[in-house]
Amino acid sequence: MDPLVKRVGIVGGGQLGKMMILEGKRLGLYFVILDPTENCPGSSICDEHIIKPFNDRAAYIELSNKVDVVTYEFEHIDSTILQELVTMGNNVYPSPHSLEIIQDKSTQKKLIVKNNIDTPDFIVVDGVTSIKKAGLKFGYPLMLKATTGGYDGKGNARVNSEEDVDIAYKSLGSGSVTLMAERFCPFEKEISVLACRDINGNISIYPVAENKHVNSILDETIVPATISKESESKAMEMAHSVMELFSDVGMFCTEMFVTKSGDVLFNEVAPRPHNSGHYTIEGCFTSQYEAHIRAIVGLPVGDVSLRSPSVMRNILGSGKAGKTMVIGESQILKDPFVKLHIYGKEYSKVNRKMGHITAIGKNIEDAQFRAATAFNNIKIVGV
Amino acid sequence: MDPLVKRVGIVGGGQLGKMMILEGKRLGLYFVILDPTENCPGSSICDEHIIKPFNDRAAYIELSNKVDVVTYEFEHIDSTILQELVTMGNNVYPSPHSLEIIQDKSTQKKLIVKNNIDTPDFIVVDGVTSIKKAGLKFGYPLMLKATTGGYDGKGNARVNSEEDVDIAYKSLGSGSVTLMAERFCPFEKEISVLACRDINGNISIYPVAENKHVNSILDETIVPATISKESESKAMEMAHSVMELFSDVGMFCTEMFVTKSGDVLFNEVAPRPHNSGHYTIEGCFTSQYEAHIRAIVGLPVGDVSLRSPSVMRNILGSGKAGKTMVIGESQILKDPFVKLHIYGKEYSKVNRKMGHITAIGKNIEDAQFRAATAFNNIKIVGV
Repeated sequence: MDPLVKRVGIVGGGQLGKMMILEGKRLGLYFVILDPTENCPGSSICDEHIIKPFNDRAAYIELSNKVDVVTYEFEHIDSTILQELVTMGNNVYPSPHSLEIIQDKSTQKKLIVKNNIDTPDFIVVDGVTSIKKAGLKFGYPLMLKATTGGYDGKGNARVNSEEDVDIAYKSLGSGSVTLMAERFCPFEKEISVLACRDINGNISIYPVAENKHVNSILDETIVPATISKESESKAMEMAHSVMELFSDVGMFCTEMFVTKSGDVLFNEVAPRPHNSGHYTIEGCFTSQYEAHIRAIVGLPVGDVSLRSPSVMRNILGSGKAGKTMVIGESQILKDPFVKLHIYGKEYSKVNRKMGHITAIGKNIEDAQFRAATAFNNIKIVGV
Repeated sequence: MDPLVKRVGIVGGGQLGKMMILEGKRLGLYFVILDPTENCPGSSICDEHIIKPFNDRAAYIELSNKVDVVTYEFEHIDSTILQELVTMGNNVYPSPHSLEIIQDKSTQKKLIVKNNIDTPDFIVVDGVTSIKKAGLKFGYPLMLKATTGGYDGKGNARVNSEEDVDIAYKSLGSGSVTLMAERFCPFEKEISVLACRDINGNISIYPVAENKHVNSILDETIVPATISKESESKAMEMAHSVMELFSDVGMFCTEMFVTKSGDVLFNEVAPRPHNSGHYTIEGCFTSQYEAHIRAIVGLPVGDVSLRSPSVMRNILGSGKAGKTMVIGESQILKDPFVKLHIYGKEYSKVNRKMGHITAIGKNIEDAQFRAATAFNNIKIVGV
């Protein structure tokens, strides 16, 4: 990376891209983003913004011509476009091959199973009959999942009994996308572990984060997770196995279930910094964003251990849709251990991720109380 | 600050301005900078850049028309221009009045003395005869200082004996700028204390930093300072007194001397984030840049206590002048507790501030060793 400035291209200029840029700018890097939204969060802080659709093949080539390495902040990208960039001699991290595997939940899980990583049983289904067959095998409740395109619970349906199969099948598009049925995991906790692999193969594992969802959208992340030492070790080992499996470069976030008996089961993996890793900005010496950027430009990753117990709360848009307005920040920032992140999205609407809070504390309870108090006193609405 | 986005104007887009923007962007703020250099460090991450000279009156009015509050990253600004902005109804923090006092070292010190804050004796001098008179009063060595325009030791001369008076007088412009003679302080340590006052008058005091200079340019900052508890208390109290004295809004950095006997003497104050406060990015929960920005937009400042012992080393340009090239970053970032900051200045030249390193550690010695190792393995040169 020595010869002059390294240039990084990011597909997507949302909050994750923005936070990558904020860290990379400290290292003097140059950023080009590709995002169709003119005033997206990353727009004002990048060096160049290619305002073109995410399915515009030529825009990806334009992006790669401007930079030394291409990365992305979300998975719903045509991996063949990225593969084309690699074929043309560009660096794309994480690799389009990893992305392709991960994009299809059934392919992803097959690889996981093949490598002896515990995960709830699943089977690809192609209609009501085969879903019912899966129901007989796995029992109810049963999870029905679109194998591609899902996020924040979209593309998932919980089937409580055989009578519900029809409705669930219809709610996921009646077979317009490939579906899989998954044995329901009666988890105690949902957790995630970030891990980053540098260009020389060194793997850094972040602490275990505990995630609470509301309406399938991440609401709260608590670090360290309140699980047994044994489950914690299992989770960190699983994250490590996943990293070895992909042998890629950059940040991956593995989401897992912890059962009542303390078992840890793989749920899914994302090849990028993750919503559940926002806490790393304040909680760790090296944030997930900095670690990812350092990895993909060929630098060592830095220390990723926890500096302070941390709790993150997502702030979703509420009230009516319209120009973004933040209410309550003066109030919540009176707590000296609360940090507020406003993504800078021009428009707010219900359930849109508009910002987040991170609180640190003497212990989890302290951080959780601070975060909850702040969360209850802030609102992002449209005007 | 609630109604939509708050806009901040910064006079100066150097490394201090850049670091203010990097923090303010997390809060979703909008930044306009005024700086004559097209590719200055802050340029690529601000929302608007007014590329005009620092003495262009109209440019300041243009800046203030675009923002809710104006601040600055250096002191050598015509305070009457800023005062004009205030008269026109704009917010300028810290106030032009504070800036005006601070810009003239003799006015600054007179105010300090008037408020019973200990500082080395001084007297304004107007020629060789009055300097020699001061020499008789204060003894030698004697410090001769330009009352305005100095930085990084420029504008200061040490006069070792009466025979040296002529040379020193000539070296500082033979009376073209007003000079003052100051009793030499045989200090053991040079320290600085950052303090920030919010819009409601709450004052936050950072830990005491110990500074080591090479050729009058800051080389190393060690936090906490290795001084007695008593000196530490005196220093923090002095910083507090200075903040009460100015009763202003924003960050001030008070530089002080610690004598052999543990006395603390005021040296000078800067009304802005300071080079000796870079360590706060990694060392504190709230960096000096974030605290300053929060204060001037009317938000509470946040916790400013030390999270980890921290050592900062400045990286100055070396070798020949030319396009900036960084050598050794992969090497130094192998230490997981070292952070590298590259300011993004297009051109490097000898002694130009090009970046810095911060290391944290289990203790001061650990942090200092990490920082020194990194410092010895990195170079910023021109090509």
